[in-house]
Amino acid sequence: SRSLNLAVIPGDGIGQEVVAEGLKVLSAVLPQDVKLETKEYDFGARRYHATGETLTDADVEALKKHDAILLGAIGDPSVPSGVLERGFLLKLRFLFDHHVNLRPSKLLPGVATPLAGQPEIDFVVVREGTEGPYTGNGGTIRKGTPHEVATEVSVNTAFGVERVVRDAFARAQARPRKKLALIHKNNVLAFAGHLWTDIFNKVAEEFPDVTTEYMHVDAATIYLVTQPERFDVIVTDNLFGDIITDLAAAVSGGIGVAASGNINPSGEFPSMFEPVHGSAPDIAGQGNADPTATVLSVALLLRHLGYDAEAARIDEAVSTDLAERTGKPARSTSEIGDALAVRVAG
Amino acid sequence: SRSLNLAVIPGDGIGQEVVAEGLKVLSAVLPQDVKLETKEYDFGARRYHATGETLTDADVEALKKHDAILLGAIGDPSVPSGVLERGFLLKLRFLFDHHVNLRPSKLLPGVATPLAGQPEIDFVVVREGTEGPYTGNGGTIRKGTPHEVATEVSVNTAFGVERVVRDAFARAQARPRKKLALIHKNNVLAFAGHLWTDIFNKVAEEFPDVTTEYMHVDAATIYLVTQPERFDVIVTDNLFGDIITDLAAAVSGGIGVAASGNINPSGEFPSMFEPVHGSAPDIAGQGNADPTATVLSVALLLRHLGYDAEAARIDEAVSTDLAERTGKPARSTSEIGDALAVRVAG
Ligand SMILES: CC(C)[C@H](C(=O)O)[C@@H](O)C(=O)O
Ligand SMILES: CC(C)[C@H](C(=O)O)[C@@H](O)C(=O)O
Repeated sequence: SRSLNLAVIPGDGIGQEVVAEGLKVLSAVLPQDVKLETKEYDFGARRYHATGETLTDADVEALKKHDAILLGAIGDPSVPSGVLERGFLLKLRFLFDHHVNLRPSKLLPGVATPLAGQPEIDFVVVREGTEGPYTGNGGTIRKGTPHEVATEVSVNTAFGVERVVRDAFARAQARPRKKLALIHKNNVLAFAGHLWTDIFNKVAEEFPDVTTEYMHVDAATIYLVTQPERFDVIVTDNLFGDIITDLAAAVSGGIGVAASGNINPSGEFPSMFEPVHGSAPDIAGQGNADPTATVLSVALLLRHLGYDAEAARIDEAVSTDLAERTGKPARSTSEIGDALAVRVAG
Repeated sequence: SRSLNLAVIPGDGIGQEVVAEGLKVLSAVLPQDVKLETKEYDFGARRYHATGETLTDADVEALKKHDAILLGAIGDPSVPSGVLERGFLLKLRFLFDHHVNLRPSKLLPGVATPLAGQPEIDFVVVREGTEGPYTGNGGTIRKGTPHEVATEVSVNTAFGVERVVRDAFARAQARPRKKLALIHKNNVLAFAGHLWTDIFNKVAEEFPDVTTEYMHVDAATIYLVTQPERFDVIVTDNLFGDIITDLAAAVSGGIGVAASGNINPSGEFPSMFEPVHGSAPDIAGQGNADPTATVLSVALLLRHLGYDAEAARIDEAVSTDLAERTGKPARSTSEIGDALAVRVAG
């Protein structure tokens, strides 16, 4: 019999509430013969306040033993900006080499978008997750004086760029439209830009059936609101990916339904799946957060582990659930979770 | 009698066509006693192909003698990406210390927006223009090999940040809503982020009547499409400013009407005004480019030189012209210029 050994990190704010529903749907969709084991970890603001720890070496060793990680949300206004982000979220992405940060954007029927008309949006962003300006390189001199200088160094390697570009080409090739756009700013960031562009063009030769285009990141934000239907797969740098995936989430139904995967494709370390939304402390504890983004993250997790049919059942259940919302009274977090669990089981 | 000594850089593609209309409107709006002198410069792709030059020392000396610069667009697919951008546009911003890159976004009546509803959009982005990842710092080792490493260094100084933050506070204070948002990514880019945030908070104490907020750049893209009315003045770094002003232009009527100023507030060097759109080689030479963004850039130029009433007349003429477009057949570039010239003169 098979088993799925999951690390669960509810985290802060609404993280607790939405993860509970994600697990509910996961249990409902898993085949009978799969033994689901979950272990909960207490990372986040409470642990930080209690112990000063964000992620210890022992934590890392413990997490390594799991098949995958499901994360709710990490972050609270009581913790200085950056402490949990860099001490936990980014640290884990780096330690577990989550170099493929996968963020699908699909505007599902019945879902509201801030865009006029109802454009067809169905693309996936492959964001590099371990390089670029996210490495913490840089520094400050003369801090707090009128002569302070602060630098941030974007680090880009052929190794790091090629593997994520290759992953994106493979994903594009597996989709019906077979289109891949590289988004960068190679007219200004010429060192990194050349590296990305050269590798993109080189790898493209191995994927002659994939149609490619290059777009500057500033222009990409325009297309994301005026012609989002033009995108199929996008590959981009860590920072540009951060920015455009929030915009992508906004135009394709909001961060309430945006899922993401921090993936280590080799399987050397467990991959981590999480909703794009944060801990939303303003609505935490009220039981009305939408668990859909977490449930969709569970689908990404299942697909990553090879449970394709189960992942598809979740996607379908979410689609139907969203389409049937119009005109109905708002439901609680657990009511939505219950409804989805029933659908995927049925 | 007064004089206005203008450097005119039509540049590439539609640059030629739109600048002609900008000058037409400028001549029409200027008071009789102002002697307008213009000198045209041939920067851009043709000059580059003919001589290999983008901007020589002699050019720079000549440009320094003008009161201001009006630019159409620079860039052509026949020139490798980055050559004209870095060899001309950015070079001039740096040499003339254009540290205030001013980009207003106003959704005018009758103008189409990709957003549903017709949100009230009226904000201005103050983008830093001489620092951040735009300085060309960085490098490449082992180029072209599997071990290539490319870096880009974002350089941020207290001097450079404080002057632009101060400029933004003053602009916010002069507007009815008196709101200023700092946009950065201080949870990840902690060195630069602290510098920006600390200076922003320090300068804020001198402007107690200005309401401030901080927002991460990724979140800002969401608000720009879901709640653009919340913004009044935004101050941000060079790269974030590049990205969000294209998005801002897209939601507030498109780059056809987006104007910008590269401003040296001290007046030590001439400031440069240009439409946000590029050279659009695909529609060049057909006489149907919309000159409105250039005409609005002329208004920014006039306001910068103290011709406030004339600038206001242009803004009004453009407003009326845009409002009356609905349902009418499309006009040529020069027909729009003619119409605006008549309006501002009348
Ligand atoms: C919280 C933050 C560090 C993170 C990022 O910038 O990657 C978040 O914005 C995201 O997109 O997952
Ligand atoms: C052409 C390019 C160098 C420039 C920039 O990145 O600043 C442009 O995008 C802009 O916004 O003016």
